[in-house]
Amino acid sequence: MNKLILNFKSKDSKKIKNPKNFLGGKGANLSEMGRIGLPVPPGFTISTKVCELFYKDKKKLNSQIINTIKKELKVIEKEVGKKFGDLKNPLLLSVRSGARVSMPGMMDTILNLGLNDNTVIALANKTSNKRFAKDSYRRFIQMYGNVVMGVEGYLFEELIENYKLTKGVLLDTDLDENDWEGLINDFKKVVKDKAKKDFPQNVYDQLLGAISAVFLSWESNRAKVYRKLNQIPSEWGTAVNVQSMVFGNMGDDCATGVVFTRNPSDGVNEVYGEYLINAQGEDVVAGTRTPQYITKKARKDAKAKEASMEESMPKVFKQLDKILKVLEKHYKDMQDVEFTVESKKLWMLQTRSGKRTSKSAVRIAVDMVKEKLISKKEAVMRIDPASLDTLLHPTLDEKSSVNIIASGLPASPGAASGKVVFSSEEAERLNDMMQDTILVRVETSPEDIHGMHAAKGILTARGGMTSHAAVVARGMGRPCVSGSSEIDINYEAKLFKTSFTEVKEGDIITIDGSTGRIILGEVPTVKPEISGDFSKLMSWADSFRKLKVRTNSETPLDTKTARDFGAEGIGLCRTEHMFFDEERILSVREMILSKTVEDRNKALAKLLPHQRKDFVEIFKIMNGLPVTVRLLDPPLHEFLPKTEKEINDVATVVGLPLKEIESRINELHEQNPMLGHRGCRLGISFPEIYEMQCRAIFEALSELKIKKIKSAFPEIMIPLVSTEAEIRIMKDLVVRVAKEVQKDKKVKLDFLVGTMIELPRAAIKANDIAKHAEFFSFGTNDLTQTTFGLSRDDSGKFLNDYIENKIFSIDPFISIDDGVGDLVEIAVEKGRKQNKKIKLGICGEHGGDPKSIHFCANVGLDYVSCSPYRVPVARLAAAQAELSKRN
Amino acid sequence: MNKLILNFKSKDSKKIKNPKNFLGGKGANLSEMGRIGLPVPPGFTISTKVCELFYKDKKKLNSQIINTIKKELKVIEKEVGKKFGDLKNPLLLSVRSGARVSMPGMMDTILNLGLNDNTVIALANKTSNKRFAKDSYRRFIQMYGNVVMGVEGYLFEELIENYKLTKGVLLDTDLDENDWEGLINDFKKVVKDKAKKDFPQNVYDQLLGAISAVFLSWESNRAKVYRKLNQIPSEWGTAVNVQSMVFGNMGDDCATGVVFTRNPSDGVNEVYGEYLINAQGEDVVAGTRTPQYITKKARKDAKAKEASMEESMPKVFKQLDKILKVLEKHYKDMQDVEFTVESKKLWMLQTRSGKRTSKSAVRIAVDMVKEKLISKKEAVMRIDPASLDTLLHPTLDEKSSVNIIASGLPASPGAASGKVVFSSEEAERLNDMMQDTILVRVETSPEDIHGMHAAKGILTARGGMTSHAAVVARGMGRPCVSGSSEIDINYEAKLFKTSFTEVKEGDIITIDGSTGRIILGEVPTVKPEISGDFSKLMSWADSFRKLKVRTNSETPLDTKTARDFGAEGIGLCRTEHMFFDEERILSVREMILSKTVEDRNKALAKLLPHQRKDFVEIFKIMNGLPVTVRLLDPPLHEFLPKTEKEINDVATVVGLPLKEIESRINELHEQNPMLGHRGCRLGISFPEIYEMQCRAIFEALSELKIKKIKSAFPEIMIPLVSTEAEIRIMKDLVVRVAKEVQKDKKVKLDFLVGTMIELPRAAIKANDIAKHAEFFSFGTNDLTQTTFGLSRDDSGKFLNDYIENKIFSIDPFISIDDGVGDLVEIAVEKGRKQNKKIKLGICGEHGGDPKSIHFCANVGLDYVSCSPYRVPVARLAAAQAELSKRN
Repeated sequence: MNKLILNFKSKDSKKIKNPKNFLGGKGANLSEMGRIGLPVPPGFTISTKVCELFYKDKKKLNSQIINTIKKELKVIEKEVGKKFGDLKNPLLLSVRSGARVSMPGMMDTILNLGLNDNTVIALANKTSNKRFAKDSYRRFIQMYGNVVMGVEGYLFEELIENYKLTKGVLLDTDLDENDWEGLINDFKKVVKDKAKKDFPQNVYDQLLGAISAVFLSWESNRAKVYRKLNQIPSEWGTAVNVQSMVFGNMGDDCATGVVFTRNPSDGVNEVYGEYLINAQGEDVVAGTRTPQYITKKARKDAKAKEASMEESMPKVFKQLDKILKVLEKHYKDMQDVEFTVESKKLWMLQTRSGKRTSKSAVRIAVDMVKEKLISKKEAVMRIDPASLDTLLHPTLDEKSSVNIIASGLPASPGAASGKVVFSSEEAERLNDMMQDTILVRVETSPEDIHGMHAAKGILTARGGMTSHAAVVARGMGRPCVSGSSEIDINYEAKLFKTSFTEVKEGDIITIDGSTGRIILGEVPTVKPEISGDFSKLMSWADSFRKLKVRTNSETPLDTKTARDFGAEGIGLCRTEHMFFDEERILSVREMILSKTVEDRNKALAKLLPHQRKDFVEIFKIMNGLPVTVRLLDPPLHEFLPKTEKEINDVATVVGLPLKEIESRINELHEQNPMLGHRGCRLGISFPEIYEMQCRAIFEALSELKIKKIKSAFPEIMIPLVSTEAEIRIMKDLVVRVAKEVQKDKKVKLDFLVGTMIELPRAAIKANDIAKHAEFFSFGTNDLTQTTFGLSRDDSGKFLNDYIENKIFSIDPFISIDDGVGDLVEIAVEKGRKQNKKIKLGICGEHGGDPKSIHFCANVGLDYVSCSPYRVPVARLAAAQAELSKRN
Repeated sequence: MNKLILNFKSKDSKKIKNPKNFLGGKGANLSEMGRIGLPVPPGFTISTKVCELFYKDKKKLNSQIINTIKKELKVIEKEVGKKFGDLKNPLLLSVRSGARVSMPGMMDTILNLGLNDNTVIALANKTSNKRFAKDSYRRFIQMYGNVVMGVEGYLFEELIENYKLTKGVLLDTDLDENDWEGLINDFKKVVKDKAKKDFPQNVYDQLLGAISAVFLSWESNRAKVYRKLNQIPSEWGTAVNVQSMVFGNMGDDCATGVVFTRNPSDGVNEVYGEYLINAQGEDVVAGTRTPQYITKKARKDAKAKEASMEESMPKVFKQLDKILKVLEKHYKDMQDVEFTVESKKLWMLQTRSGKRTSKSAVRIAVDMVKEKLISKKEAVMRIDPASLDTLLHPTLDEKSSVNIIASGLPASPGAASGKVVFSSEEAERLNDMMQDTILVRVETSPEDIHGMHAAKGILTARGGMTSHAAVVARGMGRPCVSGSSEIDINYEAKLFKTSFTEVKEGDIITIDGSTGRIILGEVPTVKPEISGDFSKLMSWADSFRKLKVRTNSETPLDTKTARDFGAEGIGLCRTEHMFFDEERILSVREMILSKTVEDRNKALAKLLPHQRKDFVEIFKIMNGLPVTVRLLDPPLHEFLPKTEKEINDVATVVGLPLKEIESRINELHEQNPMLGHRGCRLGISFPEIYEMQCRAIFEALSELKIKKIKSAFPEIMIPLVSTEAEIRIMKDLVVRVAKEVQKDKKVKLDFLVGTMIELPRAAIKANDIAKHAEFFSFGTNDLTQTTFGLSRDDSGKFLNDYIENKIFSIDPFISIDDGVGDLVEIAVEKGRKQNKKIKLGICGEHGGDPKSIHFCANVGLDYVSCSPYRVPVARLAAAQAELSKRN
């Protein structure tokens, strides 16, 4: 087992397999910098394992751990030649949290720990700077009082403000050591009053209190919320870094700063950052003083006057610049570094992989390959597939004139136009009818997720950049403008008002999720310009991946988009989506309402030319590539008229009395439509429907063949199979129709017949089903529903309870669940054993989720299929999955 | 491989593993009788394998088979010294179908095959009986013309009737050889006219035609319907028996008869049967002549005049009596025998296990053990568990006066009273509210199955003893009166009329399924008297079985009934059923409508004493035995008010505005409630509900313990678990409440906590769940639904299509499906591996289905649980399962 607590310079850290998991991100980097000889203030990391023990031991640090901490303190004391709590030369410490990933919402840092009524005097004497010592002490009481002891921060601030008022000064810098001395006493009183105990004078109590506070903050509400939004498992826990203090605020030969080794917004290879002379780190962030530039060039570019670090501290700057190069070489990645200069001595406080925009990430990765810093594989592994979304979404055509009616936060990139709807149900209803919508809500909740899926864009009146709407929309790649306080929504009246206009349900608006603009009417969008760097990176990815990437699409537009994004076929063409067109829906309804096969055939004959035409178009676009066509899947009643008007319309056209139509609609009602008369069950009951669909496919193929136009290769997919007999009977039907068409048109057609695996029984009995199926496509949406016995439509009501109770770490409809995965594995194994040549793919929404794509690669599928905009994401994730396998 | 065609005397038949499967029931018995030296007319059996080949070869007999048939004919010719088609001494044949089980709806028999215009003369010469020969020929044309050539039978009958009218005679016996000669010509003309071809004169054509006709009749509509009703797989196919004819109608030294070795209605050990002198077999059945008794005693008991066989043919009778004893000894079972006496020579035509009433079956089995004919094990194996139903159902208390308003067919035994309902939905609704109903329908369909389950009895206006209603009701053990043409149902007006009265929905009636009576009002019923033989048999069964048998019950009455029937505990006590009581439902609704935990707790506090009282009663009755209590399972909206009146009532009591109640009802609506917010998901969201239920259980236990009353051992069951976290969290809750109650009441309580396994994920991840669960109870109803993605409520619409298309051989909700079984096996294996001591049971409706009980025994469950009346069925099936394992 690893040591639970590790000195930064310990060689043991090299042996740790996943240092970030064990030491946290900050700890791992400090330890690494220490080991490679960079000037890091001495210290040690208390590992995440201790966090686990802390919670096991009922939120206490056990005596063994306390002893080890004390032992490690001795090591620091020796290194820096100071003693913790010493009355002559006291060691001061910083205590910082450090989880695997940086996590807002958790306790961050406590500085100046080790000061008390006595050591503060020692510090004053040692530094000959009373004001600095007192100031440090009051800062410490303030931080510790707030973060560890729970005293609200404004109480301290108020005391300072009142004091300044009384004294008639404006700035903190106007206060001297005596002023601070008085405030220190006031601060201690506030602590005693609010926390019901004295501010600790024992420095060890201070230290253990701070360490416990870091651990406790892991389970703070804010941290929990953040974890939930960012899908961070609570088991990870946090590490704690204890480090000797260095001071950037001991005079004008001191400074503190933050620097990136490259430009994080566009990726240009240049030092980028800010610093402040005579300041502590928090001052840079706090915004009370304007930080200065690091480089001369940056200062000049910004036309700033205050000297850059390069100019004011040229020696130290050079040392820093060198260290930055060392760090980039060492980490082979752009670094985000914190440093402090104490009396001209440079100390590295932290380094970590720098956050960057997607654009910058791609450029840096590609540049680093050019610079031979990293390999192509590493470049591919570097990019978070989910981040590509922002690069891929359409933007507004800036040549168009726009009528901006309000604005909000640019919560999720991309632009979209559509009819305003105020409920998820309406969004889904219109989506089913192939109409674009913008879902407008005061705020969204998990119950809206499917409406958000159905809508082209989301607009909310409340909520920030990390509101539910924002987070979910980004995940889905839907444009979103959130928190637009300029709009006033009235659900009852189905409208929203801005200061000067009124928008009703059904009106068309456009939102620009990249800028936050809300625009009346439709605005043309332009496809994202895909940079050369991006294309290069994707081509590298393609060279590494084995999983093919297809798309789920049934319209020519989507199909074209997907091909442009690199789709290698269609993995799911949902034929029922072709039924909702206004022209067709009446024939569809006529078909459903038919009571005899003859009547049904008449209605089907009207639909045949439409379907054939759709297929001709799609087969043309996907020439040379496979297209999986799924025969009719949803329960028939989904197609039925719902409003009174619709029912009347159908009655008129079909020529049946209203009453009969209503009674037929009732007849078709189902208690649990998800488990009802749908999928191939329709094909068994009404073979004529599937016959018409197959005929449309084969006639489309024949048409292209006869015209000598290159066509796609069709794979006909039978949905909702659970038994061998179903696929056998349905395959017979497909083959029979194919024969009829071939004979009729005198052409020879090639195709495959296969099935969705979307029911547990199909997975369990995959060996039987593979006797007939030439391919399996895992429909993991439905498979998740049935494996869990959990309706996606209804789970919103309690999904929150489930995430709060840690029953689900992630919504199983987003990333494939372990148990569902087991069933997929069983089916893969049994299917391949029965039929070596069987093609295996996935077409559930998991097909566009990077985590799930890794699973697909590991389990040995041949392809994944996802929505058009997720195709590049899938290509990259597939490459990463393959590369991870090799490691 | 077995020979495809087998002579009756062939020793090869001994080697066949399942002779009935291969030779059919009739063939296997003929072959067996032949082998043990009984006088069987020479012949051979064409096996069921040939039937399979026949269908594979597009309904043709292939040449190899035809050659073998001809070879086997030679063997017969040699044995009987006649030749097929011979002009001097022609061999005549009978051709009979013979499936594994006797199957009405299929072609049965063709007699006198081999007669044509020439051989008929030879037969006349040989027997010196022209009339006999001509009569035989016309019978042959009639049978063959009808069965093989498809000419409707009445056409022949009409010709005979017209002829007799013209001739002025009444009886067939009044017609002489010349009359038959003329009719033969007329018959041949009718055949030519209707079948569009000549009646075949080639005897081989006749034979092959007859054999093909038997095979074709296997797929006749009537046969298909019968198979569907009796759950006979269509793959079985039928065999064909070809046998030389013997004649019981060649004079007064000839006879034919049917005899049982014991009395089939009460089981008494006496020869029982009928015979006719100078007749063919069909005459005994046809009812044109009254058959005579076999024994003198029977004749005397019936005060009949016509001599019994014992009296008229004493020698042959003695021979027969001896053979019957040989057969019983050989088969060790009561036999149903057909024989013919041709010129004083006795021929055995058929023997088979005799059909008998349930009562008789039990007596015969017990008697045969006494007679040392069979062992106790064999006796136990002998009784069809499903048949016990008829012995177990309550009958009307005949001391009560009854007001009979109509009558129908006694379609399924037992008597029941309840409110009249006209739809399955209403039956289910009232059942949920613990109200008894009689479901009254014109006829029932698969869609009504769940209504039939919910109702206490079924009454139909149409349909016979094998109508859907009759068959299903018998299967379920529900009393049913079918085909009562005396009632006239008006669904719209919700009433039915008899000739003199009118019964409205909600009125109470009583039906007696054993007699067919329909009675106004409630009539007290008496429990079935369980005979000593029955008890003896069941005690033997208990000594052999390993599976424990529990019951599904939540009322004291059902619980008592089940204990009387031998239940060894409760396997499923559905606490939600306790919520529907009129007194409680309002508190339940109050609880559901609460928006805060506090309000919910108030409502729960009202429910607590009720639940506690229920548990006290049940725990008392089941003293010393385990009782599995399932915490609240169904989605909350099931409890909500549905009618306007109910909604108003709730609004008044709860003191909330109507609108708010309506909106809350809407909120609780679910798209797919089966996959919704139910089971332990409620326990996670509203832990206070489960807390109340646990408190009721533990307080009930404490009460009994304090009063020193012996109690049951509770097993608390968490429903709908799919993840480890769910069972862990819920178990913590149960244990916590137990601790609280124990501390509070100062008692120590023993209990187990476990879970339903009713979702595929739970089965797949059973190892994780078994870390916390102390028992698994397989909820195979839900497991079947989710494994198939098939809602039981909605499957009625296409179940028929599925059975017709042979996708399901049996409704998977009745007998456990193979794929569902695989999941159960996975869970058993993983569960036991994780936790050796885990208790395993089943509480789905499959727990009362004999086939599924065999599965449960084989997979190694500890117990099955079923409805009270199925307990003896389960005990017997469990014993049979164990005994089959040992074989």
